[in-house]
Amino acid sequence: LLDDNIEEFREQYFTLHEYDQAQFYEKVGPDIRQKIYHFLSPQEMALIFEALEIEDDEYEAYLNEMETSYAADMLSFMNTDDAVDVLNELDEDQRDSFLEMMDSETVEEFNELLAYEEYTAGSIMTTEYVSILENSTVRSAMAVLRKEAPNAETIYYVFVVDDEHRLTGVLSLRDLIVSNEDTIIKDIMKERVVCAKVTDDQEDVAQLIKDYNFLALPVVSENNELVGIITVDDIIDVIDEEATDDYSKLAGISDVDDTDVNPFKAAKNRLPWLIMLLFLGTLTATLMSRFEATLDQVALLALFIPLISGTSGNSGTQALAVAVRGIATGEVDGKNKLKLLIREICTGLITGIVCGIVVVAIIYFWQHSLIIGLLVGAAICCSIVVATIAGSFIPLLIHKLGVDPAVASGPFITTLNDITSILIYLGLATNFISQIR
Amino acid sequence: LLDDNIEEFREQYFTLHEYDQAQFYEKVGPDIRQKIYHFLSPQEMALIFEALEIEDDEYEAYLNEMETSYAADMLSFMNTDDAVDVLNELDEDQRDSFLEMMDSETVEEFNELLAYEEYTAGSIMTTEYVSILENSTVRSAMAVLRKEAPNAETIYYVFVVDDEHRLTGVLSLRDLIVSNEDTIIKDIMKERVVCAKVTDDQEDVAQLIKDYNFLALPVVSENNELVGIITVDDIIDVIDEEATDDYSKLAGISDVDDTDVNPFKAAKNRLPWLIMLLFLGTLTATLMSRFEATLDQVALLALFIPLISGTSGNSGTQALAVAVRGIATGEVDGKNKLKLLIREICTGLITGIVCGIVVVAIIYFWQHSLIIGLLVGAAICCSIVVATIAGSFIPLLIHKLGVDPAVASGPFITTLNDITSILIYLGLATNFISQIR
Repeated sequence: LLDDNIEEFREQYFTLHEYDQAQFYEKVGPDIRQKIYHFLSPQEMALIFEALEIEDDEYEAYLNEMETSYAADMLSFMNTDDAVDVLNELDEDQRDSFLEMMDSETVEEFNELLAYEEYTAGSIMTTEYVSILENSTVRSAMAVLRKEAPNAETIYYVFVVDDEHRLTGVLSLRDLIVSNEDTIIKDIMKERVVCAKVTDDQEDVAQLIKDYNFLALPVVSENNELVGIITVDDIIDVIDEEATDDYSKLAGISDVDDTDVNPFKAAKNRLPWLIMLLFLGTLTATLMSRFEATLDQVALLALFIPLISGTSGNSGTQALAVAVRGIATGEVDGKNKLKLLIREICTGLITGIVCGIVVVAIIYFWQHSLIIGLLVGAAICCSIVVATIAGSFIPLLIHKLGVDPAVASGPFITTLNDITSILIYLGLATNFISQIR
Repeated sequence: LLDDNIEEFREQYFTLHEYDQAQFYEKVGPDIRQKIYHFLSPQEMALIFEALEIEDDEYEAYLNEMETSYAADMLSFMNTDDAVDVLNELDEDQRDSFLEMMDSETVEEFNELLAYEEYTAGSIMTTEYVSILENSTVRSAMAVLRKEAPNAETIYYVFVVDDEHRLTGVLSLRDLIVSNEDTIIKDIMKERVVCAKVTDDQEDVAQLIKDYNFLALPVVSENNELVGIITVDDIIDVIDEEATDDYSKLAGISDVDDTDVNPFKAAKNRLPWLIMLLFLGTLTATLMSRFEATLDQVALLALFIPLISGTSGNSGTQALAVAVRGIATGEVDGKNKLKLLIREICTGLITGIVCGIVVVAIIYFWQHSLIIGLLVGAAICCSIVVATIAGSFIPLLIHKLGVDPAVASGPFITTLNDITSILIYLGLATNFISQIR
């Protein structure tokens, strides 16, 4: 296929969807990619680059394969949000060398977007939207749409602005095509526009788009000027990213989307958590050593340590997961925080009592020892209550402090609950040591 | 506001977005909702019902508040996919009583959709799409669009079919509005249509829409007849649902999105996991009891049990999370399963050796006992290797058996790893008991 037959390659390649073009481009080696650069214009390459699905740190390598002027041209043809994502991954020198080769208008646009903080609406929006003035007609709006169609990220929403570019309304293409051509926009537009501020968190934007089923959401500056839009496809990526992030933290790993072949990278991803937890585990051992005498007297007690710490770890993780998700989806906010906490205390009591009874029964039938059963059962009951409260209280507290509650990761809560549950267990055992022996 | 002034209420209510209307409708009590039913037509109510965000089991209560004929009318005005979702939540008698009151065409459509299995493309698709014949012109296509605009779920894609309703192409409204009105559809349509089969898994559909950035995806029957479409807003819900599901299973809880106030419900959600794990924990205790003699001789050994089981649990969960996500996102498939497994073995070895060395150092400086340090270090190293392999192998195996790998939940893997790690530790200790004492 690639034996230098430009015509044939182009013809075949362009019957593919951009996503498939990008997949092909990713799969072939650097020398074939060199040929692709010669066969395609920077504008055509821009579409492929937008559809790439590579790791953030790989962009640099791909761009280095191209001539600098080709790469700069391609970047300026890309949708601004995608181009800015790529530019954000480069070091400053390289970024500047590309920016130098673009025209001043594009550079200004890029610099504005590059200035927004990560994870804000500003950082994920694109400036390729369609806007019209309030007093134009449906006919002129359709003309604008036809003109902008090749460049705009979406033409299915038209954003209506006043003379000072302040957002005053919105219209869907659906509204436009069913309206009379001479209608004035102001008369048919929706005036209650749901929009995001540039500084809003991307998660909140995702929630809005999800709730309202929008295809795009306008983004405005402090003084209500329309500065960009965020489209639903970008929001899907945000939702995916945030879900992965929560999931990673529950598993105690820096990045769970890590199936590449390098075991050193994978180990680097996991070791910080494991080592931190080793130190916490040593703390557990230190605290337990205060009960060495008790353990020395009744070695049987040691058998139930994994059972107790495991159960308290599990119930803590359950409560944690509910609280973290509740905060992430916005279902838990200021007012019902206390409600959630009270609910969790009750849930802890119910699950604690049920599990406690089950354990007494199991141990009684297995070891025929009611006293050990009662001891372990009481310890499990108390640990579940404590673990459930800790599992919901800690993320709520962290959120209150303005930090992402997901940092209270699963293993961290589990280790904390290990400590408390074992202290409860051995503390109880020490008190009742005379009955046990 | 609601003092029986129909006109005023309707005027104010309809300036709201449907989502906000639905939020209001959810928040007010049953008697105010009764008034809303009198003020709004079933058709208007249908839009609100589509935007509701309530638990699946609450639909029944809402429908029972309405007169049966009103509810039946409302259901038939709803988008078919949303109506079918609601009907699926009702018991058969109630569903039939609604279906009896609808016209036969609607009933037939509903029954077809109700027949698809849960989690398939068929079960989430809607039949309200816009289709045209290949040999029509752009002008007639636009006319069809204008006519269908009020009902169709999306008018931004037009699906092109032949005489036998087989899908042959697709066109976006963007393509249409920039084309000459007399152009024949066949000449401008995209012929390579990415589509889903009715029996496809909803996760695969979500992946397609995510990859290709589509706003909607056509769904075809076995013989390529167009039967429905799936829109991006439904896919966002699927992505969310699947992410929540994976997250819940990692936390060992049936449904993590559970922030309502009833602690009994919450306990019911968590107890099955906890009790299952209690039994597994008893198994741990039983196996440990074989080493009672060792523990009896050196009580110090018991101090490190939580450390070892905790660390092995954590590394197992990390490996599990990577494997489950890799399978869910499709990054791990047949060919690179073995690669992932080899990678995980190497990662296990690296993390195991590093953690082992760290532990030897910690215990040496804390307890001044090199031999205990070496013993615990060796046990941790071995347990991490075993836990990492188990954490990645088990989900891969389960997936191979055709079951959702996420059922290998976090707590389950953790408890399994608890058992193996403690057996390794106490086994080693028993062998070297003479050196330790």
